[in-house]
Amino acid sequence: MKGVIATLAPRARVIDITRGVPPQNIIAGGLRWMAAAPFFPRGTIHVAVVDPGVGGEREILAARAGQAFFLAPDNGLMGFVDDRFGIEEAVRVREVRFFLPQVSRTFHGRDILAPIAARLAQGLSLRRLGPLSRNFVPSPVPPVRKTSARGRFRLEGAVVDVDNFGNCITNISRGEKQAELSDIRVGRWRFQAPQESYSMVPRGKPLAIVGSTGYLEIAVNCGRADRMLGLRRGQRVAAFLQPERSAR
Amino acid sequence: MKGVIATLAPRARVIDITRGVPPQNIIAGGLRWMAAAPFFPRGTIHVAVVDPGVGGEREILAARAGQAFFLAPDNGLMGFVDDRFGIEEAVRVREVRFFLPQVSRTFHGRDILAPIAARLAQGLSLRRLGPLSRNFVPSPVPPVRKTSARGRFRLEGAVVDVDNFGNCITNISRGEKQAELSDIRVGRWRFQAPQESYSMVPRGKPLAIVGSTGYLEIAVNCGRADRMLGLRRGQRVAAFLQPERSAR
Amino acid sequence: MKGVIATLAPRARVIDITRGVPPQNIIAGGLRWMAAAPFFPRGTIHVAVVDPGVGGEREILAARAGQAFFLAPDNGLMGFVDDRFGIEEAVRVREVRFFLPQVSRTFHGRDILAPIAARLAQGLSLRRLGPLSRNFVPSPVPPVRKTSARGRFRLEGAVVDVDNFGNCITNISRGEKQAELSDIRVGRWRFQAPQESYSMVPRGKPLAIVGSTGYLEIAVNCGRADRMLGLRRGQRVAAFLQPERSAR
Repeated sequence: MKGVIATLAPRARVIDITRGVPPQNIIAGGLRWMAAAPFFPRGTIHVAVVDPGVGGEREILAARAGQAFFLAPDNGLMGFVDDRFGIEEAVRVREVRFFLPQVSRTFHGRDILAPIAARLAQGLSLRRLGPLSRNFVPSPVPPVRKTSARGRFRLEGAVVDVDNFGNCITNISRGEKQAELSDIRVGRWRFQAPQESYSMVPRGKPLAIVGSTGYLEIAVNCGRADRMLGLRRGQRVAAFLQPERSAR
Repeated sequence: MKGVIATLAPRARVIDITRGVPPQNIIAGGLRWMAAAPFFPRGTIHVAVVDPGVGGEREILAARAGQAFFLAPDNGLMGFVDDRFGIEEAVRVREVRFFLPQVSRTFHGRDILAPIAARLAQGLSLRRLGPLSRNFVPSPVPPVRKTSARGRFRLEGAVVDVDNFGNCITNISRGEKQAELSDIRVGRWRFQAPQESYSMVPRGKPLAIVGSTGYLEIAVNCGRADRMLGLRRGQRVAAFLQPERSAR
Repeated sequence: MKGVIATLAPRARVIDITRGVPPQNIIAGGLRWMAAAPFFPRGTIHVAVVDPGVGGEREILAARAGQAFFLAPDNGLMGFVDDRFGIEEAVRVREVRFFLPQVSRTFHGRDILAPIAARLAQGLSLRRLGPLSRNFVPSPVPPVRKTSARGRFRLEGAVVDVDNFGNCITNISRGEKQAELSDIRVGRWRFQAPQESYSMVPRGKPLAIVGSTGYLEIAVNCGRADRMLGLRRGQRVAAFLQPERSAR
């Protein structure tokens, strides 16, 4: 992919965010993509290639959102972009003349996404890539179940990703208003409230924390929560949410 | 290596293809090198450092091939370049004045290959690096045994690499004429023909496929073939090759 | 981090040394940092983020040393810089107006270190980041015990890091005068003297060697010393040091 971009857009700067997404894991890819994207300059062309359906019927999408461009297979990745930034305009990438001359059915990152990214970097208009579309696969992150109980919300979510540190990322977020989470339960573990930082508990001890991307994480200070607490993707997590402190 | 190049050729752009080659694995390094190299611009200086013999008697080669430059220890890596592009000119890198002032015997990537790459980027001529040579270690990929049987070829090859997805790459290629492979056998597994894409079989099911580098692979749709099929490097693979469809 | 730097210092070139430091491992981070830093151009801004204490009371340091800049949490990483280059001037990074507008308590690499690095690249003076300080956490590499015995020194050290090849790096160095190490003992293994290169012993055989960073390593030619010799961090290593050959 880097070679294709260096050939077609020699002055474009390529920044490699991660090659560490577990194979075929769209949720891990989408979460990590959205963790990084907000910190990049306007006009950045963000490309994600987690592509288990490569060569099949899934199409490739190109979109404008948050004053940047996004390119990904239509497999849920673009749903993350929409959830985070709100997509302004999206097209189905169909104009084969912008692809590599030979397109394999096993590596569209190299044969389609990289050349399209290069051409966008060279100033090609999004609309020329294919027909407009508002219909794309939503993010596969399962929704959090939310029930109301005695003036607060009960949230039922799950571990949706395990990061490189062994931190277990859930789909439960504190929300935009910095609401308070409390009474967090994961398996046989229980946490009164999220900690402010990993080091608020002794080394080797578990904690709940709202991580740098705004989601509730189960972690171990200086340790791997996945191994030490026996957690994995899919593990159910429950918590209570108090919308505003002043409402108490 | 990147620091040395940044020092000696400050305007050169360094593109890092992979740091994921298993230690000392020349076949994995060579295959991945050749998978990427054809997609880079003319004049690129391709450097490979898989170097189990560092500090011993093996020399370092610099070559011109496919309108680009290639640098590697003489341990088989340059054989991949010759097989893929045909080497036009190669030299043994011996001019120590182009090396770092202090050369260790444990990291020639940093002390010799990086400064030589930087100097080629600065315009130094290949011929000034050392004497011309046509005699280098060939690629260690074992040859495919080919026998003729009833109008088609029987191929006997092997798994030569396992990639990051667990796909098992063989040394059997479809060849330049896009001939048809059929009746593929690996251990107790049998595949009538290669699939067109991974998603042609249900999730978790095995398949044979000609991968993005032109070699036959044994894969599992959305899974790791190495673990799920119990395959590893060296595993024997057999297939039949029908040179041309029209010849049937 | 790369996005923040691309936003605040669009012309700065970011070079990614490694994302492979084991989580929270300050010794591995410091050793690898110091292995790479001497090979970079003058004026480079070296940033290290191994940050188990993020969000707690540890501060962030910025320093000038060896004609370059260094940025790291005050957790021992800067001790490596001082040991290697001698710090000329260091400040505690406290001027929040140079940070990102919102600072998390879980990822200061992104929120503090990256924007500070970008601003240094843009020409901001070190002194404007916060008050001068000479008081920082020293490197956590345990000191080598040195005793004199019959005209030579007996050194007692330990394995302090295991690199990606499985080589076991000790805290014993040959010193500046290229003194001779001999009679090396690690567990039940014994080596008369360090080898000049890995390939001086047969494939699969263990050896001692002074690696590319000047420290004594226990290695296996074309194999992983950690697994094959059962070594790990903390393993004690003893050796003798003969200060000068001519003194024999």
